[in-house]
Amino acid sequence: MAEVLLMPRDTLDTIATPALVLDLARVDRNVARLRAHLAGLGVALRPHLKTAKSVDVARRLFPEGWGPITVSTLAEAEYFAAAGATDITYAVGLSPDKIARVGALIAGGVDMTVLIDSVAQADALGHAARDGVALPGVLIEIDCDGHRGGLLPDDPALIAIADRLRAAGIALRGVLVHAGESYACRGGVGLPEAAEQERAVAVTAAQRLRDHGFPVPVVSVGSTPTAHFARALDGVSEVRAGVFMFFDLVMHGIGVCAVDDIALSVLATVIGHRLDKGWILVDAGWMAMSRDRGTQRHPVDQGYGLVCDVDGVPYPDLIVADASQEHGIVAVRPGSGAALPDLPVGARVRILPNHACATGGQHEAYRVVGSGAREVIATWPRMRGW
Amino acid sequence: MAEVLLMPRDTLDTIATPALVLDLARVDRNVARLRAHLAGLGVALRPHLKTAKSVDVARRLFPEGWGPITVSTLAEAEYFAAAGATDITYAVGLSPDKIARVGALIAGGVDMTVLIDSVAQADALGHAARDGVALPGVLIEIDCDGHRGGLLPDDPALIAIADRLRAAGIALRGVLVHAGESYACRGGVGLPEAAEQERAVAVTAAQRLRDHGFPVPVVSVGSTPTAHFARALDGVSEVRAGVFMFFDLVMHGIGVCAVDDIALSVLATVIGHRLDKGWILVDAGWMAMSRDRGTQRHPVDQGYGLVCDVDGVPYPDLIVADASQEHGIVAVRPGSGAALPDLPVGARVRILPNHACATGGQHEAYRVVGSGAREVIATWPRMRGW
Repeated sequence: MAEVLLMPRDTLDTIATPALVLDLARVDRNVARLRAHLAGLGVALRPHLKTAKSVDVARRLFPEGWGPITVSTLAEAEYFAAAGATDITYAVGLSPDKIARVGALIAGGVDMTVLIDSVAQADALGHAARDGVALPGVLIEIDCDGHRGGLLPDDPALIAIADRLRAAGIALRGVLVHAGESYACRGGVGLPEAAEQERAVAVTAAQRLRDHGFPVPVVSVGSTPTAHFARALDGVSEVRAGVFMFFDLVMHGIGVCAVDDIALSVLATVIGHRLDKGWILVDAGWMAMSRDRGTQRHPVDQGYGLVCDVDGVPYPDLIVADASQEHGIVAVRPGSGAALPDLPVGARVRILPNHACATGGQHEAYRVVGSGAREVIATWPRMRGW
Repeated sequence: MAEVLLMPRDTLDTIATPALVLDLARVDRNVARLRAHLAGLGVALRPHLKTAKSVDVARRLFPEGWGPITVSTLAEAEYFAAAGATDITYAVGLSPDKIARVGALIAGGVDMTVLIDSVAQADALGHAARDGVALPGVLIEIDCDGHRGGLLPDDPALIAIADRLRAAGIALRGVLVHAGESYACRGGVGLPEAAEQERAVAVTAAQRLRDHGFPVPVVSVGSTPTAHFARALDGVSEVRAGVFMFFDLVMHGIGVCAVDDIALSVLATVIGHRLDKGWILVDAGWMAMSRDRGTQRHPVDQGYGLVCDVDGVPYPDLIVADASQEHGIVAVRPGSGAALPDLPVGARVRILPNHACATGGQHEAYRVVGSGAREVIATWPRMRGW
C-alpha cells in the first residue's frame, strides 16, 4: 500500500514574515455591505482597483464575470484587461504621452474612459484622433471641495472642453467628481453632507452640459466615505470606491468602519525588546507597513498600526509607535494604562494598517486566510508599477 | 548596401512616467567621497544595500569584485548571494524562525553574520546548532543613543550572551552599533559628536568582551551621517552606510550633502492645473514618491519632494506640497515669493525625494542617466520583498 504523504500546510505560525495577510471573510462581508447599500440607492458600483491591485481580489467583486472597474494607472488597466476586464475608467488626469497606450487598450477590445479637465487635454486627444489613434470616451473632472483637480461646475472651460471634443468627433461621456475632502471628517460627522455635496456638484455640472446640448450618460461620484454615507444619489449613474473592500484605521477614524471590519493586516515576528523603554521590536518596519501616518492628526493616533494577536484580536492600546525600514517599535499608546503584553522573541502579531492602499503597495502578494483561522488557503499576487 | 537602422533611444522626454531616475555620475561621486573619507580614517566600508537593492548599483561599489556587504532582509541576502556576494551581514535582530534560511545561505558558500541582543536569540542559535544547521557568525547589538534595539554597553547580558554562544560552539565575531539618532541632527551640528559616541560605545563594549576573554575581531559602526562626520575611528573595524550612494533631502537637511549631490529623482509629467490655488498637478503621487515625510520637522519642509526641471535643476522653492496615490500637487513653498513656473500639460519635471530608501522601494527599476543628460543608458531592476 502506498504511504499517504501529508504535506504540511502554510499557516500564520510558519510563513516568512513580514507578510501581508488578507482575511477573505471580511473582504466578502465588506463587498456585500457596499453592494447592498448602493443597490438600495439604485446606483451602479464601479469599484476602484487601485487598492486591491489583484485579479484574484477583483474576482470577489465579480464572481459571475467582470463588471465596470476604475483604475489609477495604465499599468493597472493593462493588467486587468489582460485578465478579461473590458470596461475600464482611468480616473487620473490624462497626459498627452499616455494617449497611445490608451489607444492600444482600445484596439485590444477594451472600452476605455479617460479623465480630463482642460482644453489642452481635449486638444491633445483631437490631435491623436487625426493621427488615427483609437480614442477613448471622456469624462470631465469636476471639483466639489477644492481637494485636487477638476473644474468648478460653473467654469466656462466645461463647455469649451465639450465643444472641442465634439468638434474632434470624440465621445464625451459625462462628468466625474471625487469628494477627497471627506477624508477630513471624523467619526462619521459631516459625511452625509459631503456625499450630498459630491452628488449635487456632479448633477449640476451634468445639467450644464445637457443645457448646452451634450448628452451626459455618465455621472460618476465616489470615495469610500461618501459611498457609504450617501442617503440619496438621484441623478448619479455610478459610484467609485476602492478601500471599502479592505478598510483600514483611517477609515475607522473617519467613522466608516469598525476595527473588526479591517480585512488587511501585516504578520510580524518579535525580534527583540527594550523593556527599559517599554518597547517590543518586530520585523515589520515601514517597508512592510508603508510610511503612511494617516491617523497622525486623528483623535486616536494609531502610529504605524494597531497590534493584534496572531488571530487578529487587538491588544489594548498597543501600536507600532515608530518604525525604521525593517524594525517596528511596538509600545503601549501614550497615556494608556494598558500593560505591555508578554511576547517573547519569535512570537507573532498581526498589525492593522493606517492605509490599506499604501500598505498593500509594499508587498508582492496576499497570504489569504479565513476569519480567525491560521491556515493560508491561497497566495494571491499583486501588481505594481506604471 | 545594408540600410543602417537607428533605433530611437529612450530619453527622459519619452519614457513612461512616473519613473525612478538614477544619475550615475552622482552615484560614482558619492561612492568615491565616502570611500576616500574612510580610507583616510583607515577603516573598511561594508555598504548597506538596503537602499540600492540592485546588483547593478552594487557593482558601482565593487567594480573589481564583491566586497563585504550589509543587508536588511534575508531576501536581500539571497538576492545578492545569487549574484556572487560571499560576505554578508544581516543587520536586523535575528528571529528564531529565520535561522534555517541563514543556514541555507551558509550551506551555499556565503559567510553570513547575524545580529542578536538577547540570551533567547543565543539559545535559539544553540538549539539550531544541535539540530545540525550551519551557523553564522554573530554580532551583539549595542545601543549608543536609545534609538532602537541593542544592549547598553555595561549590560550584564552582553557577557551572558557571549558565554552562551561559546558554550554552543558558535562564533562570536564582535559588536555592532548604529547611531540612529544622528538623523535628528540638523545642518551638521552634533554629527562629529554623534560619530564619536557611536565609536566610543562600540569600543567600550568590545573591550568588555575582550576583558572576559572573548576575541572581538569585528567592531562595526555606522550610519551615513556619522560615517561622513567621523573624525577618528580608532578601534573600529568597519563602517556601514547605505543612503550615502544616492543621498536625499533628509540627508541634505541633516547637513550631510548638498542638493546637487542627490542622485535619485522621480520623473513626472504634468497632468493638470489649479491656478486658482497655485497648483500644478503631476502624475507622481505618494505611490511614486513614497509616503515618507522625513523633512516634515526640518527647518525646511520639502513636502513630498523638491521639484526640478527635466535636467535636474531645482525650481526656486517648488515642492510637492501634497500627494494622493497617483497625484502630486506641486506648489511654491509657503512663505516664498517665488513664481509658479509655466509648465503646461505634458511638461516633465524631476522630483528629488525625502528618503531614497523609501522612494526607491516604490519602483521596479532604475532608469539610469548621466548628469545633465536625458538619454536613458540603462534600466536596472530592483529587488523587493522579504
